Amino acid sequence: MPMPQPTIGVFDSGFGGLTVLRALLPLAPGTHFLYLGDTARLPYGAKSQTTISRYAVESSRFLEDHGCDHLVIACNTATALALPDIRDHVGIAVTGVIEPGARAAAEALARVSPGDHAGESGAVPAILVLATAATVQSHAYRDTCAALGLRAYEKACPLLVPLVEEGWTDHPVLRDVLRIYLREALEEMRAVGLRAEAVLLGCTHYPLIADAIRQALRELGSDAEVVDSAAATARTVAATLPVAATTGPATFACYATDSVEKFARLGSVFLQRNIPEVHLLDLGG
Amino acid sequence: MPMPQPTIGVFDSGFGGLTVLRALLPLAPGTHFLYLGDTARLPYGAKSQTTISRYAVESSRFLEDHGCDHLVIACNTATALALPDIRDHVGIAVTGVIEPGARAAAEALARVSPGDHAGESGAVPAILVLATAATVQSHAYRDTCAALGLRAYEKACPLLVPLVEEGWTDHPVLRDVLRIYLREALEEMRAVGLRAEAVLLGCTHYPLIADAIRQALRELGSDAEVVDSAAATARTVAATLPVAATTGPATFACYATDSVEKFARLGSVFLQRNIPEVHLLDLGG
Repeated sequence: MPMPQPTIGVFDSGFGGLTVLRALLPLAPGTHFLYLGDTARLPYGAKSQTTISRYAVESSRFLEDHGCDHLVIACNTATALALPDIRDHVGIAVTGVIEPGARAAAEALARVSPGDHAGESGAVPAILVLATAATVQSHAYRDTCAALGLRAYEKACPLLVPLVEEGWTDHPVLRDVLRIYLREALEEMRAVGLRAEAVLLGCTHYPLIADAIRQALRELGSDAEVVDSAAATARTVAATLPVAATTGPATFACYATDSVEKFARLGSVFLQRNIPEVHLLDLGG
Repeated sequence: MPMPQPTIGVFDSGFGGLTVLRALLPLAPGTHFLYLGDTARLPYGAKSQTTISRYAVESSRFLEDHGCDHLVIACNTATALALPDIRDHVGIAVTGVIEPGARAAAEALARVSPGDHAGESGAVPAILVLATAATVQSHAYRDTCAALGLRAYEKACPLLVPLVEEGWTDHPVLRDVLRIYLREALEEMRAVGLRAEAVLLGCTHYPLIADAIRQALRELGSDAEVVDSAAATARTVAATLPVAATTGPATFACYATDSVEKFARLGSVFLQRNIPEVHLLDLGG
């Protein structure tokens, strides 16, 4: 009897989680993905924990009810604020983006700073986490890094998502904004005795500006390694797949709670491939 | 028998409508205002007509049910996409922000270009409308201006709301972004034979950056007059109030569908006064 095809649900408030799906597709042959973008209620970044949790649980239940046997919360805000609630309300495995990202940053830090001790400057090697205001306020990255024995400094960068969505991913204004945010972050870290050895992209929009972030770090004299939590999450999820399922290309279907035309158009930028069909979904919100 | 105190409902997806309330308070002595910010579902700017209309009707009904005898839709997106639906679903007078704004811009245009004919350059005097993507896509300003016999050119400026909400209202990046948007808009207008004589702020966040917009226009060699649709709306609504009610200071109460702490904090920037109490409201979204 052939093994059933694994079905993985990928959930985000909008389009950013498609960078996680993009990283998953080549790593998960033979797997079917259901992507749900809760676009009618995006962005989650500025909303309260109660509201975000309610929205995320509704979306997670939809994906479980539609046959998913594994759920990826491809949204930093929902992972930071709602992961325990989601796990309480579904009966399948749930992977968020924060722990895989923090583990990948820890590996990067171990490569550049073996021993994790203070350098000659006296500054402690640490991870700089770039994220939305809500993710930073949750301190989910700080706490997860602390559990791995690492120091993390979290910097809110509220303008980066709008700049990516404006399409200004390679634009002088983006470079100015990155220099401002990164200079502030590096100075704030120095002031508390920390040295950024890895920069963790704590928002699924940021992989689209990873090159600009590397460039801005170089201009500021930092050689910190840029770590992408979308890619790290994809590797973690792929490692759970049964080997027998790894035949044939991965397939996917998309659901959105708002305009399917807009989802297909903007989503294809994040997924970097055409999205042939998007199903409209009413979660009653 | 004393006349009952007029109660006016002011609705927005978030905080921006507080610039309309701010303009209303000194013009409406003796009036009580109920402000509702649907912050759990903001921003409306990127959502579909169907979704925006459903949200706006729910909020409008709440305000009618709570004693309002006049409703101000202090949100350009909701006015552009949902005003007819709102009027169909409530039994009280409804004023949106677009028609008062367009009328004020028409008056400004009449002052600088009496006769409304092509100038020596051959370019036709016109109104440049700055707004969110959704307001522009609705063409509500273009159509309202056309009904007044005027040409309007609508320019989407998606980064301005995030910049205002970041607090960068007097910042080099804001000035760069304004120069880029305004230079593009003025060039696009010239290319179709239009000359901007008035610039209409078609988003309730923009009054907070009106000075920076005037400055950027001057730097680009434009002497177009900046017209604030929040102030124009306030004047229109105040003109409907019974004269007998105009005693004592206006009062207000605020409702928000998400974090009341955040509403009180960020809202006070838009209202430019302290917001002592915010009531949490669940519209079931």
